[in-house]
Amino acid sequence: MKTTILIHCPDQSGIICTVTGFVHAQGGNIIYLDQHVDKASGELFMRIESEFLDTKLSVHHFKSKFEEQLTAKFKIKWSIHTDETKPRMGLFVSKYNHCLYDLLSRFNSGELAVDIPFIISNHNDLEFVAKQFDIPFYHIPVTKATKAEAENKQLELLEKYKIDFIVLARYMQIVTSKIIDHYPNKIINIHHSFLPAFAGAKPYHAAFKRGVKIIGATGHYVTEELDAGPIIAQDTTTVSHTNSIDDLIAKGRDLEKIVLSRAVKLHIQRKTMVYNNKTIIFS
Amino acid sequence: MKTTILIHCPDQSGIICTVTGFVHAQGGNIIYLDQHVDKASGELFMRIESEFLDTKLSVHHFKSKFEEQLTAKFKIKWSIHTDETKPRMGLFVSKYNHCLYDLLSRFNSGELAVDIPFIISNHNDLEFVAKQFDIPFYHIPVTKATKAEAENKQLELLEKYKIDFIVLARYMQIVTSKIIDHYPNKIINIHHSFLPAFAGAKPYHAAFKRGVKIIGATGHYVTEELDAGPIIAQDTTTVSHTNSIDDLIAKGRDLEKIVLSRAVKLHIQRKTMVYNNKTIIFS
Amino acid sequence: MKTTILIHCPDQSGIICTVTGFVHAQGGNIIYLDQHVDKASGELFMRIESEFLDTKLSVHHFKSKFEEQLTAKFKIKWSIHTDETKPRMGLFVSKYNHCLYDLLSRFNSGELAVDIPFIISNHNDLEFVAKQFDIPFYHIPVTKATKAEAENKQLELLEKYKIDFIVLARYMQIVTSKIIDHYPNKIINIHHSFLPAFAGAKPYHAAFKRGVKIIGATGHYVTEELDAGPIIAQDTTTVSHTNSIDDLIAKGRDLEKIVLSRAVKLHIQRKTMVYNNKTIIFS
Amino acid sequence: MKTTILIHCPDQSGIICTVTGFVHAQGGNIIYLDQHVDKASGELFMRIESEFLDTKLSVHHFKSKFEEQLTAKFKIKWSIHTDETKPRMGLFVSKYNHCLYDLLSRFNSGELAVDIPFIISNHNDLEFVAKQFDIPFYHIPVTKATKAEAENKQLELLEKYKIDFIVLARYMQIVTSKIIDHYPNKIINIHHSFLPAFAGAKPYHAAFKRGVKIIGATGHYVTEELDAGPIIAQDTTTVSHTNSIDDLIAKGRDLEKIVLSRAVKLHIQRKTMVYNNKTIIFS
Repeated sequence: MKTTILIHCPDQSGIICTVTGFVHAQGGNIIYLDQHVDKASGELFMRIESEFLDTKLSVHHFKSKFEEQLTAKFKIKWSIHTDETKPRMGLFVSKYNHCLYDLLSRFNSGELAVDIPFIISNHNDLEFVAKQFDIPFYHIPVTKATKAEAENKQLELLEKYKIDFIVLARYMQIVTSKIIDHYPNKIINIHHSFLPAFAGAKPYHAAFKRGVKIIGATGHYVTEELDAGPIIAQDTTTVSHTNSIDDLIAKGRDLEKIVLSRAVKLHIQRKTMVYNNKTIIFS
Repeated sequence: MKTTILIHCPDQSGIICTVTGFVHAQGGNIIYLDQHVDKASGELFMRIESEFLDTKLSVHHFKSKFEEQLTAKFKIKWSIHTDETKPRMGLFVSKYNHCLYDLLSRFNSGELAVDIPFIISNHNDLEFVAKQFDIPFYHIPVTKATKAEAENKQLELLEKYKIDFIVLARYMQIVTSKIIDHYPNKIINIHHSFLPAFAGAKPYHAAFKRGVKIIGATGHYVTEELDAGPIIAQDTTTVSHTNSIDDLIAKGRDLEKIVLSRAVKLHIQRKTMVYNNKTIIFS
Repeated sequence: MKTTILIHCPDQSGIICTVTGFVHAQGGNIIYLDQHVDKASGELFMRIESEFLDTKLSVHHFKSKFEEQLTAKFKIKWSIHTDETKPRMGLFVSKYNHCLYDLLSRFNSGELAVDIPFIISNHNDLEFVAKQFDIPFYHIPVTKATKAEAENKQLELLEKYKIDFIVLARYMQIVTSKIIDHYPNKIINIHHSFLPAFAGAKPYHAAFKRGVKIIGATGHYVTEELDAGPIIAQDTTTVSHTNSIDDLIAKGRDLEKIVLSRAVKLHIQRKTMVYNNKTIIFS
Repeated sequence: MKTTILIHCPDQSGIICTVTGFVHAQGGNIIYLDQHVDKASGELFMRIESEFLDTKLSVHHFKSKFEEQLTAKFKIKWSIHTDETKPRMGLFVSKYNHCLYDLLSRFNSGELAVDIPFIISNHNDLEFVAKQFDIPFYHIPVTKATKAEAENKQLELLEKYKIDFIVLARYMQIVTSKIIDHYPNKIINIHHSFLPAFAGAKPYHAAFKRGVKIIGATGHYVTEELDAGPIIAQDTTTVSHTNSIDDLIAKGRDLEKIVLSRAVKLHIQRKTMVYNNKTIIFS
């Protein structure tokens, strides 16, 4: 069995030795370890991948030993994940298909170790893609008047299918705190600009108007403040005066799909931790 | 003799044929032609490189023929430049030497076809670099109280040495309209961020705080609105949570010097035109 | 009607003026013109996009006038293409789906102005993708013994469906001169390395062994010499010692699909010309 | 005092815990740890940055304890470096100044924590740069006939000045085993192509002929086989059919200087280890 342990605690002398020694004592062989100290706050973040050859390892037992010996003593917040359960991903879309196709074709090739119980959309346009890939599709229209009700329906589905995290694959609606509060740092959005430049609506129009020579895309966790959540991944590409707004949109599609998939993969691999509205991205 | 002609006029049927025919009739062989139509406004921008084998070509004569036959008829604003005169570049610096060294080592290798009559700085720190390269150095301190007076001194030097364009190579002072008005779209600044993100002071600190995964640099023409002038060149590089502010600054230095030199070269080669606060960058 | 004219002839004084004048005289409004002179050979290459408002323009008439007035006189090889007929693309695949999905999802979104009459594969694995997108799928197995026969079947289909150009979307077979001779500079292949590094089989294994820090992908026209045809598009991405061969393969997939689609789009837009085993890629 | 420890040993259960525990027991606070396991061979590579607050720490004492308790038991090859001694860098150049200027301007800004006792060149051309930066310059001409003698002179200087590592900043001579044997994995060269493409002489000419759309530069350790040593850093930039060989050379200069400086910095920071003709580059 392979496990990934994520740890957050105050930095303290000997902490790496203590934790690696504990994993070792429990029969774990550490494959990879990465850590980061936030110098301003003195907080330590660590990610440990281990292999347990003894197939009888009980995660439950590991957890209670860890709690007993380490948690309180070193003020550790932590989580453990095994490769035996796949995270369940809720997929929200609207009308654009490029991010959806990119995610589903990777899913189909076994590149993304998740379950995708359903696709939710506020429009019908992409139902055919859901059908192509044989994934249940829920059409939940959203208007100003029905927004609260629509979010209730979304929450019902999220709970019913025990969704672990949400991916907004160019979902063209603002998600409110009603949903965010249930999924803190667990909703991944792709914004079609190099944030913090051009936050908000119509970033390609704004980029065209400003005459930038490079455009970008940003995968980030959704927080209450629009387009201001912790950034997971970004990428950029060059543009020129010859490019129309439509050209920027077309070039941007390639960025958006690659960056969103990269962010989703990092999340699935438990390579992200969030602190102070910023991410630590483990290698 | 080699000439570069820059043309700006309303787009109109047959205009390329008319202008290229004129150059041809004057004995010019067109080496390269690039053009752009701003669709919103219907304005045409064109750059023509030609060779004139007849060494007796008088630019004066060419100009008057062009005025006579084309200017009014097609509402053309235009300029002609020959490789026989080098533009004169005024160099402004403060304390950082990376952009200065980059420009001067290129200059030394013959990569930049300019004259550099002097270096102006509000500090003494880089006088030794000016000495290394044997370029006159003028130390003109700037304080709130002396700013107006300092700009007068700068203007005097700019006029005395018949400076054609100015390069702010990490000059850490805001240049006012007193100077800008004399050099419209002829002052090139390097801003140490991917504009429009992080305009203003301390962009690396702001980038660190926001937790971006990519930083950038922007070479642009200076206008009255701070960091909002037409963008000539931009580039970006990846950063991560492991990078401190000092790391961002060090990584940024490499971007800044490459991007500034790229912008300066484009300007020297007459490959830039400005319209609507944006640049056309000819190939 | 919109037309694209591609021209290849010896460079000669006044040629731009002559050709643009001709287009103008036929009622065409030139939208964009790009040209290139190969200095070693003195050959000129030119691409002209024009709009003809007179909807009665007969391409046939245009052609015969052009032949009459220009072709022989200026030794021009040329072709004209209108936006009224879409090129017909033959798609060859084997077992990997990432390039196929990328092309088909772009096709589905209207990003590629082509017809795709069929998909040919030497394996059955991707038949389901063809079904998802409702495109006829021909399974033509290839063994050493049956290769000649298989290529005959392929040729039959290519002719029957009047295919204009072929895209090898990770088709894992060498195409022989039997097919290449029918489609000179009209077969686009994606090679999974930064050519000329790592030509031939298993480039990711070779890249891993050499310990490169960057991998690449190359879209090129197929010629008789393996992986040595004219390069249309390339891109690269960084890798590190932490990446296994499988990681390189996964990272490479993202490059391959983006680069292949870019090459295909350039070909469809008639932005490529070939000379001396190199491409001119018009802007 | 800050120390960097580099470790190479067979991978074995509990090794991270053992080593970090040892450092902790000696009064060291681990700031950063990075490790890599070469899966094919089962070899572990580790880099540990530590702070020792007790200023009385004797590196000598630390070393003998380490040898006593760990070296034999775990079959460790290791080295320890403190920030109290700067490595001494020998600089070899020929006629091109861009890499030299880049290194020296960084050195001047305090970006490179080295001593540079001298510059060696087979030509006189860059003596003026050495003078600009006040560094002793040794002109040692090299011809076929005098090569052996020239290398003897070089070795004398290298020994006299106790040089730790050598940087070939576009030194246009092949260095033989006479020197390489004294500096295994300690001679850094910049090759002006994206290796393994275009190894050997005139890579830009070869790149032009092949019609690549991207060029690169490679910083690598020098081994007996030409341009085949372990790669430290690479970077690439786009080119097009419009670029002449001279354009490639000019674009390449920017790559070369940035990549060489990056490789030199990684070496100085002890972030490189070599195994199987490949590098591990620690983060």
